[in-house]
Amino acid sequence: MKTTLCKDAGRIVREAIAHNLPGPAVRAALEGFVPPRGRVVLVAIGKAAWPMAAAAVDELGDAIDCGIVITKYGHVEGQIERIVCREAGHPVVDAASVAATREAEALVAELGADDLVLFLVSGGGSALFEDPQIELAELKDVTRQLLASGASIDEMNVIRKHLSKVKGGRFAELCAPAQVLVVALSDVVGDRLDTIASGPAYPDASTTEDALALVRRYRLKLSPQALEALTKETPKALDNATTKVTGSVRNLVASAASACRELGYEPVVLTSSLCCEAREAGSFLGAIAREHAGDGRKLAFVAGGETIVHLRGSGLGGRNQELALAAAPAIDGLANVCVISVGSDGTDGPTDAAGGYVDGSTVAELAAADLRVDDVLDTSDSYHALDAIGGLVKTGPTGTNVNDVAVVLVCE
Amino acid sequence: MKTTLCKDAGRIVREAIAHNLPGPAVRAALEGFVPPRGRVVLVAIGKAAWPMAAAAVDELGDAIDCGIVITKYGHVEGQIERIVCREAGHPVVDAASVAATREAEALVAELGADDLVLFLVSGGGSALFEDPQIELAELKDVTRQLLASGASIDEMNVIRKHLSKVKGGRFAELCAPAQVLVVALSDVVGDRLDTIASGPAYPDASTTEDALALVRRYRLKLSPQALEALTKETPKALDNATTKVTGSVRNLVASAASACRELGYEPVVLTSSLCCEAREAGSFLGAIAREHAGDGRKLAFVAGGETIVHLRGSGLGGRNQELALAAAPAIDGLANVCVISVGSDGTDGPTDAAGGYVDGSTVAELAAADLRVDDVLDTSDSYHALDAIGGLVKTGPTGTNVNDVAVVLVCE
Repeated sequence: MKTTLCKDAGRIVREAIAHNLPGPAVRAALEGFVPPRGRVVLVAIGKAAWPMAAAAVDELGDAIDCGIVITKYGHVEGQIERIVCREAGHPVVDAASVAATREAEALVAELGADDLVLFLVSGGGSALFEDPQIELAELKDVTRQLLASGASIDEMNVIRKHLSKVKGGRFAELCAPAQVLVVALSDVVGDRLDTIASGPAYPDASTTEDALALVRRYRLKLSPQALEALTKETPKALDNATTKVTGSVRNLVASAASACRELGYEPVVLTSSLCCEAREAGSFLGAIAREHAGDGRKLAFVAGGETIVHLRGSGLGGRNQELALAAAPAIDGLANVCVISVGSDGTDGPTDAAGGYVDGSTVAELAAADLRVDDVLDTSDSYHALDAIGGLVKTGPTGTNVNDVAVVLVCE
Repeated sequence: MKTTLCKDAGRIVREAIAHNLPGPAVRAALEGFVPPRGRVVLVAIGKAAWPMAAAAVDELGDAIDCGIVITKYGHVEGQIERIVCREAGHPVVDAASVAATREAEALVAELGADDLVLFLVSGGGSALFEDPQIELAELKDVTRQLLASGASIDEMNVIRKHLSKVKGGRFAELCAPAQVLVVALSDVVGDRLDTIASGPAYPDASTTEDALALVRRYRLKLSPQALEALTKETPKALDNATTKVTGSVRNLVASAASACRELGYEPVVLTSSLCCEAREAGSFLGAIAREHAGDGRKLAFVAGGETIVHLRGSGLGGRNQELALAAAPAIDGLANVCVISVGSDGTDGPTDAAGGYVDGSTVAELAAADLRVDDVLDTSDSYHALDAIGGLVKTGPTGTNVNDVAVVLVCE
C-alpha cells in the first residue's frame, strides 16, 4: 500500500506541475484564438517569457508578425522566428531592462485598431519590464528609501506604478488603439491582476493622492521630476485589454484535484490561498489525514498557496519540506495515508528538491536515524532529515512558478 | 445575509455543545442499558462527575444500588439519592482525593461476578481519583522532580500509573469479578482511553521496565517503598471492563456537522485532532472560506481539537478567539462566509467568552475602531478587539469540557 501511495502522490504533483508549465499553459489559453484583421505583435516578459513565446509562435505560426522576449539573464534558450530575445536584470531593474522595454514600446507604438498585442506575462516581469519616468538611479534610490521606511509591498507598488511609463495599466495605453490580450502565468497567490508584474495592462486602483500621501508619511526625498511624475494619474479603466490567467496556483490545485480523481481518489479542494506558517499547515493537514484514515474510502485533500517559514536554525530546507515533515507525527503508524508538498518551480528553498513526502512510517524511519520531527523543525533542517529516509521529492527546475501544492491521500 | 450567517453559526456551536453536556451524553450512552443480575454500583469521577451521576440516577432509577461522586471543590450541586458526594483537590491531589478514592474502593471491594460498576469518568479525574502506594507527600515530591527534569506528560504518567492503586487499569482489577462499564466524557484529543483520567479501567501499555528506565534517565530520588511499588506490574489486559466514549471532541465535531446539515449546509469534517497554533489554524480556515465563497453552495467545514497559543503580549484572549480573529483577513469583504470557534466549556482562556465570530465585515469594523488584526494578535489581545465589534461568543460555563470546535460557513 505504501508503494502505491507514494507513487500516486508523486504522479499527482508531477501532473499538476505539467499542466502549469509555460508551454502547455499558453497553448491552453490560445485554444480557439481568432486572429485579428490586422497584425499580431508578441511581447513576452518575465522569467518564463521564452518558453511562453516559443509556445505561442509554435501554436499561432505566421499569425504572429513580430515580437520581443524580455527575460532574466541566462533564460533565453535559443532563437524564435520573428521574435527578438533580450535578457535583463532580476530581481533588480537594470539598464538592459529599460532598453528592452523601450524596444517593446516602439513595437506597439504605431499599431492600429485592427492590430493585437499578445502580451505574455510571468513572474519577475516587474523588474524585467520597466521604463521609469525618472532616471534609473533615482528609481533605485526611491526603492531603497521605501525599503528602509518599513512601507508594505502594496505601498511600494503605488509609488512604483506612478513613476513608471509601463506599469499600472500604462503599457495597455501605449498599445491603444490596438487590443491587448494578456496571457498570464501567475505567481501571485489570489491572482490579483494588478499585482502580477505590476499590472502593465490592468487598471490601477491607486491614485496620485495615495502616492503623495505615502511620500509625506514616509518622508521620501524626491527630485522635482519624480514629484511631477507622481501627479500624473494611472489609467482607472482600460477598454482595450483583456486578461486570461492560464497558469496559477488555482490551476495547480485544480490540476492536482483532476489527477487525484483520475487515480480514483475523491478530491476535496481546501484552498488555493494558503499563507500560514508551513509547520502549522503541515500539522493541520496531518490531522485531516488522521481523521479520515478510517473512512474506508479513497480520498484526497488538496491545498495550494505559499506558506511561510520563520527560520529557527542554520539547517537546510524549504517550506514544502517543512510542511510535509510537520505532518508526519499526526499520521504516525497509519498504513493508508500520506502527505506530499511541492513547489511548482522544482526548487524548494535553497535546495535541489521540489518538496517532501511523508507517510505513516516516516516517524519510525526518522527515529531509526536518531532524528525527531520537532528537533528537525526547530533547527530548520528538513532537507537532511527527509534525505536520510528517502522523503525528498525531486523534479529538477521546472521552468514554471505558480507557487506550491500539498496533497493528502487516504486510501481504503 | 450576515444576520443569517451569524445566527446559524451561533446555533450550530450551541447545539454541538448541548449534545456533549454531561447529562445528555450519559443518557445517550445508557440507551438500551441492560441491568445485571446483581447490584449496580455507581462511581463517578472528574469535574463533570456530579451532572453525570445525576443523569445516570435519573435514567436508571432504582437499578442503581449505591455509589459515590468524587468531584472538584464547589462542583457538587445537591444531593443525589443513594449516592454520596465528595469534593476534593484539583488540579493537585489532596488528602480528600485519597479519602474519597478509598471510599470508592470499599464500595466495589466485595462485589460478585453478577454485579456491575457503572464508572462515569470525566476530565480532572486524574487528580480527583488517586490512592497512591506511597505517602501522598512523596507522590507530590516525585511529581515535582519529574516536572523539573523536563519529562513529557506521557513519561510522567508511566511513573504515576505504577505508583497508584487505582490508575493504569488497577481500579478495574479491584472491581473484579464484577464487570465495569466505563462511560467517558473525554477531554483528551484523540480519545486515548489510557489517558482519560489516567485510565483506571483500561489496560496500561507501559511496563515496570519503562518506569525504572525513567527513574534512571531523570535521576529521580525515590524511597525504597516507591522503588518497590514501581516493580509491580500494571494490568496488560482486562476482561471485565468495557468503555463507551460518549462525549468527546469527535462527538462535538459530529454534532456540529449534524447541526450544519439540519440548517442546509453540506458539512465537510476536516479533523477532530487539530493541535497547531491557533493563529495559523485561523489563517488556514480563512483561506478555505475564501476558496469556496464563490461556489454558489451552502457549505460548512468543521474542525475540532485543541489549538495552542504562544503568548506574545499582555492582552486578554483565548485560543478560540485568536483562531477566529486570525481568519478575518482572508475573508475580508466577502458577504457570504463566516468563521466561528468556541471552547465547549464556555470559558476560552481566562475570559468570560466561549470564543469568537468573524465575517467579511470584521476587518473593516476593526479598522473603524482603529484596530488591525496583526497588531491585536501580536499583543494576544483578541478578547478586547472582538468585544469592540460584537464578535465575542458567550455561552457561560457549560459544565462540559470536550475541547473546541471551529466552523466555517459558506452560503450561496
